[in-house]
Amino acid sequence: MNATAFDEAVALTGSAGRYTGRTHPAFANMVGPFGGVTAATALHAVLSHPERLGTPTALTVNFAAALADGDFELEARPVRTNRSTQHWVLEMRQADGVVLTGTAVTAARRDTWGVDDARMPDVPGPDAVAQVPIPSPVEWIRRYAMRPVDGLLPTHWDGSGDTSRSRLWVRDEPARPLDYLSLTALSDVFFPRVWLRRATHVPAGTVSMTVYFHAGAAEFAATGSGWLLGQAQAQGFHNGFFDQTAQLWNEAGALLATTHQVVYFKG
Amino acid sequence: MNATAFDEAVALTGSAGRYTGRTHPAFANMVGPFGGVTAATALHAVLSHPERLGTPTALTVNFAAALADGDFELEARPVRTNRSTQHWVLEMRQADGVVLTGTAVTAARRDTWGVDDARMPDVPGPDAVAQVPIPSPVEWIRRYAMRPVDGLLPTHWDGSGDTSRSRLWVRDEPARPLDYLSLTALSDVFFPRVWLRRATHVPAGTVSMTVYFHAGAAEFAATGSGWLLGQAQAQGFHNGFFDQTAQLWNEAGALLATTHQVVYFKG
Repeated sequence: MNATAFDEAVALTGSAGRYTGRTHPAFANMVGPFGGVTAATALHAVLSHPERLGTPTALTVNFAAALADGDFELEARPVRTNRSTQHWVLEMRQADGVVLTGTAVTAARRDTWGVDDARMPDVPGPDAVAQVPIPSPVEWIRRYAMRPVDGLLPTHWDGSGDTSRSRLWVRDEPARPLDYLSLTALSDVFFPRVWLRRATHVPAGTVSMTVYFHAGAAEFAATGSGWLLGQAQAQGFHNGFFDQTAQLWNEAGALLATTHQVVYFKG
Repeated sequence: MNATAFDEAVALTGSAGRYTGRTHPAFANMVGPFGGVTAATALHAVLSHPERLGTPTALTVNFAAALADGDFELEARPVRTNRSTQHWVLEMRQADGVVLTGTAVTAARRDTWGVDDARMPDVPGPDAVAQVPIPSPVEWIRRYAMRPVDGLLPTHWDGSGDTSRSRLWVRDEPARPLDYLSLTALSDVFFPRVWLRRATHVPAGTVSMTVYFHAGAAEFAATGSGWLLGQAQAQGFHNGFFDQTAQLWNEAGALLATTHQVVYFKG
C-alpha cells in the first residue's frame, strides 16, 4: 500500500522503546495535533518494541499538555510481562516537559466464545447517507471521510441542545486498511459532546482517553478500508469536565473498539 | 468517624509520593485483594501527596499481577502540573516486581453548567429491594451491603444467559461517608459480566480499569453514607477479554462516577 499522511504522522525512528517522532501538519488541530493521531503514535511505540507480547487490548493516554509543532521523544517500557499479558508505561516529552502519559496492555489473545452485547444500531448504511464536509477550520478533519447519520454539529449555536448522541459512518481519507493505529485515531474522531448537548461553542479538549480493542487480525482483514459506524454519547457534565463514551463497528456489525474519554470544557 | 476496615485497607505510610501499604484480610479476593480497594489505595497515594493540585478527575489502573498478601510499595509522581490540571504516574511494586501501573489526572474544578446525560434508571428504591447475602466464598463481598434490583448472579449455571446488565443498590458495610477512595472501590464492585451473560462460571479478572469522577465535595456531603445505585453492562466479549461499563448515582439521582474496565476471561 502507499503510505498516507496518517502513516507519516505516526512514524517513529529509534529502537528498543526509545523513539523520536514529529508532529504532522496534515493532522493539525486548533492547538497542536489531533489527539487521536497522538494516541495512535503512542501505541505505535508499543507495537514497534522488539519485546512486545501479543496485541493491544487496552490503551490509556493522558494529554498533559498541547504538543508544540515539531519533534517529540516517546518512551514505551514493558514493566511487567506475564505468560499472556504485558503491561506498558508510555511517556511523550518535548522541550518543556512531559506532554503525554499513558499505559497499555497487550495480550496474546486466544479464540474463545464471544458476543457483541453492544449491537450496532439500526441506521441507514453508508451509501444511503450523504457525505458532508464538516465545517471546521482545522486541518485534521479533512483526513477523514464522514457521513453523519444523526447528532451533527449544531448549525445554530443557540443553547438549544437536548441530546449528546451522534452516529456517523467514518473512514480514513484517503482510504487505508484499518489497523490498531488508525482504529485508535478513529476513537477520538467525535467532536466534544458539550458542543452538541448545549448547542454552545465553548473551548474543550480531551484530558484522558481509553481504548479497549476487540478487533484482531481477522476483523481488520474483514474490514479492510471500509466504513466504520461510530456512536458517541456523553454521560455526565460537571464542573468543567464531561465524559463521553463511544463504540466503533465495521459495516458488517462487528464491534471493533469501545472507547471513553474525559474532556475539559470552559463553562 | 470511626476507622473501618476500608480505612485500614487503604492506609499508607511514607511521604512525598513514596508510600508503603499492606494488603488487608478483610478485602481478600480469590487471589490477592479486591481490585477496587487496590485501585482506591493507588488513588490514596495521589491524595496523600503534598504537591497535589485539585481533586481526582480520571484514574486508570492496570492490574499487572495478583498482589501477594503482605506489604507493597506505592509511588505517585506528579509529572506535569498545569494551571488547573495535574498529571500523575502510579506504580505499585512487591518483591517480584510491578503489580500495578496507573495514571491519574487531578484538576481544580470550577462551578460550571452541567447536566447528567446518563440518567438514573427508574428502579425501585433501596427500601423496596431486599438485601441479599451474595453467595460468594470471598471475604471482600461482606464489606458491602448489596440490594440487587436485577441482573443477579445466576443461580443455575446452565449457559442460558442473554443479558449482561445489572443494577443494584450498594454501600459500604459498615456504612461510611462516601469519598473519592470508597467511590473508586465501589466502581469495581460489579461481578464479571461474563458470568451473567453466559450463565457460566469461568475464571475472570480485571486487567485495566478507568474511573471518571463527577462527584466533588458537595456531592459527597449530599450522599453521606447513603445508598448508591450502580449499573453495569458489558459491551464486547472477544478472544479472552470483554469490557464492562458502569455508572454510579446517589439516591437523589446525581451521577457520581462513570467507570469502565476490560476483563480477562477463560473461554
